[in-house]
Amino acid sequence: MPYIFEHISFVGFGLIASSLARAVKKHALAKTITAFDVSQEVLQDACSLNLADIITDNPETAVKDADIVFICTPVGSSGKAVKTISPYLKKGTVITDVGSVKSSVIKDILPHLSNDVFFVPAHPIAGTEKSGPNFGFAELFQDRWCILTPLEKTPRNIIEKVAELWRLVGSNVDEMTPEHHDKVMAIVSHLPHLIAYTIVGTADDMEYQLKQEVIKYSASGFRDFTRIAGSDPTMWRDIFLANSPALLEVIQRFTEDLTALQRSIRWEEGDKLFNLFTKTRKIRNEVISAKQHIMENEKIYLNKKDAIKND
Amino acid sequence: MPYIFEHISFVGFGLIASSLARAVKKHALAKTITAFDVSQEVLQDACSLNLADIITDNPETAVKDADIVFICTPVGSSGKAVKTISPYLKKGTVITDVGSVKSSVIKDILPHLSNDVFFVPAHPIAGTEKSGPNFGFAELFQDRWCILTPLEKTPRNIIEKVAELWRLVGSNVDEMTPEHHDKVMAIVSHLPHLIAYTIVGTADDMEYQLKQEVIKYSASGFRDFTRIAGSDPTMWRDIFLANSPALLEVIQRFTEDLTALQRSIRWEEGDKLFNLFTKTRKIRNEVISAKQHIMENEKIYLNKKDAIKND
Repeated sequence: MPYIFEHISFVGFGLIASSLARAVKKHALAKTITAFDVSQEVLQDACSLNLADIITDNPETAVKDADIVFICTPVGSSGKAVKTISPYLKKGTVITDVGSVKSSVIKDILPHLSNDVFFVPAHPIAGTEKSGPNFGFAELFQDRWCILTPLEKTPRNIIEKVAELWRLVGSNVDEMTPEHHDKVMAIVSHLPHLIAYTIVGTADDMEYQLKQEVIKYSASGFRDFTRIAGSDPTMWRDIFLANSPALLEVIQRFTEDLTALQRSIRWEEGDKLFNLFTKTRKIRNEVISAKQHIMENEKIYLNKKDAIKND
Repeated sequence: MPYIFEHISFVGFGLIASSLARAVKKHALAKTITAFDVSQEVLQDACSLNLADIITDNPETAVKDADIVFICTPVGSSGKAVKTISPYLKKGTVITDVGSVKSSVIKDILPHLSNDVFFVPAHPIAGTEKSGPNFGFAELFQDRWCILTPLEKTPRNIIEKVAELWRLVGSNVDEMTPEHHDKVMAIVSHLPHLIAYTIVGTADDMEYQLKQEVIKYSASGFRDFTRIAGSDPTMWRDIFLANSPALLEVIQRFTEDLTALQRSIRWEEGDKLFNLFTKTRKIRNEVISAKQHIMENEKIYLNKKDAIKND
């Protein structure tokens, strides 16, 4: 079978890029993989992990032969990254990205691209709280969704090639407008992260002894929030700033709902609480039915099961 | 070795009681185990699982020979449960519980107990979002904390016997006042659960199509909140009402912090966000150092590892 893309380049080689490189290798989806990063530490790790054929901090070397370039930087740096590499792109190259916000990324990237390359904005909904190439794994995208927010002028066959690559690493692919993507992600991803950062921050401000107890007894709920609030600071700062209009709107809705719940507790409205908690339990069951409940840590165990068997 | 308690009775046989019964069996810590519940379904499950020697809905049968009785009902029912069984307790029996709130539970239980039994309030900080005896497992308490909030008049040797039982099922034991326990739990457990219920409720109120998308893409953060918000509605309604003074205070602090963060996003104060997220990442590392990061799902896999090896 011929490759969809012979030469794949990654600009920014963190958790997502390194996971995708592993998956591309595992399924033999490209002849050549190039990893570019501005951090020497990241390049060293990419070397030790043997995840790419070409490992470089030179933008020309990084992209001049690429058939597809994945922009995998934090969203706040994606415009700058594309500006750096764009002079060296060959005609017909596909540029895509993995950013968690789409409207702002498109606005940042488009001005730097000439008309003879194609840009297919994408967002694989996958990740862990860890960062850096060491923590990537090939199964990260398996049974997860990848959302494409294609531009109107892009030919269908180009969009399909990007979609096909994502399918081959195990993802399902959806398409929507950047605006709709950003609205959905504000609810489903950005608000949960913001809330987790807030609650862990609230605990961090407590007096010393209380804080130590919070850590000690964290298995009772707080622990799960620390996992989310342990996510990469640069990545999430950029996301919140890039998607602030949609995010500020859902924070408002959340705050109203929290205030209502607070009032129900104060006035001992047990039935209201019970009814809400019954509804939320139903949503949990729908998440399970949609097979989206398996956590990344479990995936790793499930994939290791065979390895363990042969220990 | 003689048993610490020859005959252990459970009043209310859900996830916690059934896990403890499994652990007691596994480590051969008692001669006789009795399971009492008011739900026929729960009693049926206890039967099929073969987790107790005596399975009954008769309060007299349940406790008349017990050396220790574990009250394992939702906290709002613990007073009533003790009232039902107290006429049948023999002299010197130890009553303990597993409730997530201590001040209110002590207030509810104490009036129903005579002076010739001992009450040792306890809270094992362990659990999952599942409920019912089917989902229990013997390792639930392993490497978790159990907090005792003993009464002043209780003899030290009685408190020590309860502590020892928890240690034998793998827990670490701490002691503190009920008031301090409730304050710490409001931060570390009750607020996180309340927030998770709120955020899942906010999503549930969205229009139909958006809600379907929230479920579909839930792996991006929302999913983790649905797990917590899938917890037992009766149990959590009771906890929030029973610990409302401490909980309302931490909700207030949380709301202030969220408002400040919202403002930083609106005014694009990137440095403030970055600094907060760096602090919260440090807390995550402290949780890992305290070995409280291993989730219940992972525990199950880790414990199954040997079983898998021998498949």
